[in-house]
Amino acid sequence: MQHLLPLDNLVAALSRLPGIGRRTAERMAMALVQDGRGLMRILANALLEADEGITCCERCGSITLSGINPCDLCIKPRRDAHILCVVESPGDIMKIEQSGGFQGRYHALMGKLSPMHGTSATDLRVDKLLHRLVDEGIEEVLIALGTDVESDATASYLKEVLAPREVKISRIAFGLPAGSAIEYSDASTLARAISGRQEI
Amino acid sequence: MQHLLPLDNLVAALSRLPGIGRRTAERMAMALVQDGRGLMRILANALLEADEGITCCERCGSITLSGINPCDLCIKPRRDAHILCVVESPGDIMKIEQSGGFQGRYHALMGKLSPMHGTSATDLRVDKLLHRLVDEGIEEVLIALGTDVESDATASYLKEVLAPREVKISRIAFGLPAGSAIEYSDASTLARAISGRQEI
Repeated sequence: MQHLLPLDNLVAALSRLPGIGRRTAERMAMALVQDGRGLMRILANALLEADEGITCCERCGSITLSGINPCDLCIKPRRDAHILCVVESPGDIMKIEQSGGFQGRYHALMGKLSPMHGTSATDLRVDKLLHRLVDEGIEEVLIALGTDVESDATASYLKEVLAPREVKISRIAFGLPAGSAIEYSDASTLARAISGRQEI
Repeated sequence: MQHLLPLDNLVAALSRLPGIGRRTAERMAMALVQDGRGLMRILANALLEADEGITCCERCGSITLSGINPCDLCIKPRRDAHILCVVESPGDIMKIEQSGGFQGRYHALMGKLSPMHGTSATDLRVDKLLHRLVDEGIEEVLIALGTDVESDATASYLKEVLAPREVKISRIAFGLPAGSAIEYSDASTLARAISGRQEI
């Protein structure tokens, strides 16, 4: 069978999505072609509207409507302007907002230190973070990164860079997740929960 | 955090893809927003080009360029015009073509009988199939459907409909897949391989 260029291009574009391999992309493309309800056009329009309608906040990096930049999170006076939560990506900001556990402002690094993926300190938005400390009179930086090796390295690097500044540095707690039991916890989670024990 | 309509719409459209749940769609949408290489627009353009550039052949149902309808498979004189391979979907035609095991023409039903999904005989392209038998002087109909209950029901239905016609009806063989051993075969594959045994 001849190769159909538009189909090949669609498969190639779909397989650039995270977690989508070539076989899955082919299956998606076939479903799109066979779909009788115009899904191909609906998805294309949703992409174009998202491309035009949303962007990353120039200040904190969170996702915002193109017309609202800096974003609501940065300008709302109700939020505590003295504490800055540093995260890896805009998605993390959404997750933390959904948790309702933080009322300060955010700063997305847009990555983490990773020699494997070629991400070095200059690729992260650290300069911007240092400027914000001064400009906004930040008193505490809360590092909200995960527990993998790259996140730990990034947290250590931030601690080093921030040390000379007059700012309190904290990191979110690691321990047993909500609803879990000692019995089902892995060794490294337990070790971190014990080393991070708190007086009650 | 405020809900961003363009982002919500994108997640909704992505989660209509096969095998993509809400969480995966959210992860994809975030990756698209954060992608710095214009993937959002690349994917949108690939979708629009596919939407305009490819279609299903009006005769056999296979995927073809919009300008080539009926498709190459239907019009190539090298192909055996007397045997028609009936499949469920255009994707199946591609798979069989890749196998190189068939040189006749195709007919995609665009589905299979499924009371669960509300697909009845009138939803399939059976009328068109019957017309083709006469118009094209078909001598053999090869039913290339799978081994699930719905495919079996569809094959039985086709056999019944085609019985009054002067046409040979065959179905692809079921048995051990290439490279497998008796030891690793399941009971129903073995049973079908034995009942479908061939003299050598």
